[in-house]
Amino acid sequence: MPAALPGIKACVFDAYGTLFDYASAAARCRDVLGDRLDALNALWREKQLQYTWLRALQGRHADFWQVTGDALDFALETLGLGDAGLRARLMDLYLTLDAFSEVPEMLRRLKAVGVQTAILSNGTPDMLDAAVRNAGIGDLLDAVLSVEAVGVYKPHPKVYHLAVDRFGIPASAIAFQSSNAWDAYAASAFGMRVVWCNRYGQRPERLPGKPDYEISSLAELPTLIGV
Amino acid sequence: MPAALPGIKACVFDAYGTLFDYASAAARCRDVLGDRLDALNALWREKQLQYTWLRALQGRHADFWQVTGDALDFALETLGLGDAGLRARLMDLYLTLDAFSEVPEMLRRLKAVGVQTAILSNGTPDMLDAAVRNAGIGDLLDAVLSVEAVGVYKPHPKVYHLAVDRFGIPASAIAFQSSNAWDAYAASAFGMRVVWCNRYGQRPERLPGKPDYEISSLAELPTLIGV
Repeated sequence: MPAALPGIKACVFDAYGTLFDYASAAARCRDVLGDRLDALNALWREKQLQYTWLRALQGRHADFWQVTGDALDFALETLGLGDAGLRARLMDLYLTLDAFSEVPEMLRRLKAVGVQTAILSNGTPDMLDAAVRNAGIGDLLDAVLSVEAVGVYKPHPKVYHLAVDRFGIPASAIAFQSSNAWDAYAASAFGMRVVWCNRYGQRPERLPGKPDYEISSLAELPTLIGV
Repeated sequence: MPAALPGIKACVFDAYGTLFDYASAAARCRDVLGDRLDALNALWREKQLQYTWLRALQGRHADFWQVTGDALDFALETLGLGDAGLRARLMDLYLTLDAFSEVPEMLRRLKAVGVQTAILSNGTPDMLDAAVRNAGIGDLLDAVLSVEAVGVYKPHPKVYHLAVDRFGIPASAIAFQSSNAWDAYAASAFGMRVVWCNRYGQRPERLPGKPDYEISSLAELPTLIGV
């Protein structure tokens, strides 16, 4: 069977929510969070993204460690969980998020046939190094690209361009995978081939671009690439 | 009593949520929306803002009429309300949103002492003209400034600069009012004096800037300005 996405030379992955389960930090604090676990995860994530967009648009970048902490402070305060010990614990856990279970084998299959692989993320180099090391997938990645190289967050086109520059191939030879619909649409508008790994049951966006495929787990990716 | 905010030459207002009640469109469709009214208002507004930020950051501007319709489509689909008649009705109603009740008298008090007044909004000139006309406040405004003049949305600094350019005064002589915390913080970071009209009980943001005052109704504004 021919590949659904032929001619792909590199697979580039969003990190948080796509390779790594951002909800796993709070899940390990279930003892303290109890029935506020889901609310904390939702609000923390929502504010984290909002703050990246708002700072980028104002030209007032702060790195993802600070923004993640700022968003956590907002969420904890809103939910009446103002405990410095809990904050420190959640931030620590954000450095060792679980990788989704299919990730190592999926990367191994891509590497086995010579497809290049990379992370392209809002995270800082330190945050991404920690997550990659914790997941034991460093040997399966050709590059870990952080927005810190350009000082602005997704979906600014400069960010997607980092992958084009790193591999020296056209955007159309790159398959970009994200669980975030807005990120998937933006990468498509930029010119990449896009596989939207819709883990969270999001609905299609009304934004420029259109993901080429929608899957629910990255285990489905190698087949699409023709591996 | 001295003014809390001395030296203000112009009062500049956000439109949607600040002068005009964006929830009033859906409220007039309560017959159809029933108990999904609040959910529609929340999701429509959330997506509308998200789409402005995401498009601005990508450099893919579309005007606020399109973005408002795109966000409405997303919200209606998500809530299982896919009715073309309802969509058309809600978009029409968005052109004649209620002004908050204190707005005309508040503007009159400012104008009476020579303070200049303006709207500074994401809305298109046509949308803003319709809202101003419907509210009967055209004579109380010296300017209606739309982001269409710069082709990018708030909180890009270019937008706040429109007010500085229009009045030819320093940002510090302008009091900017918004009900949107993120907008209030951004205008403060830009250098304006800012009164956050926190109608919706939002919590303080962890973003650059800091509103000078927080009020719950614009009726409190003239006293702050020393009127």
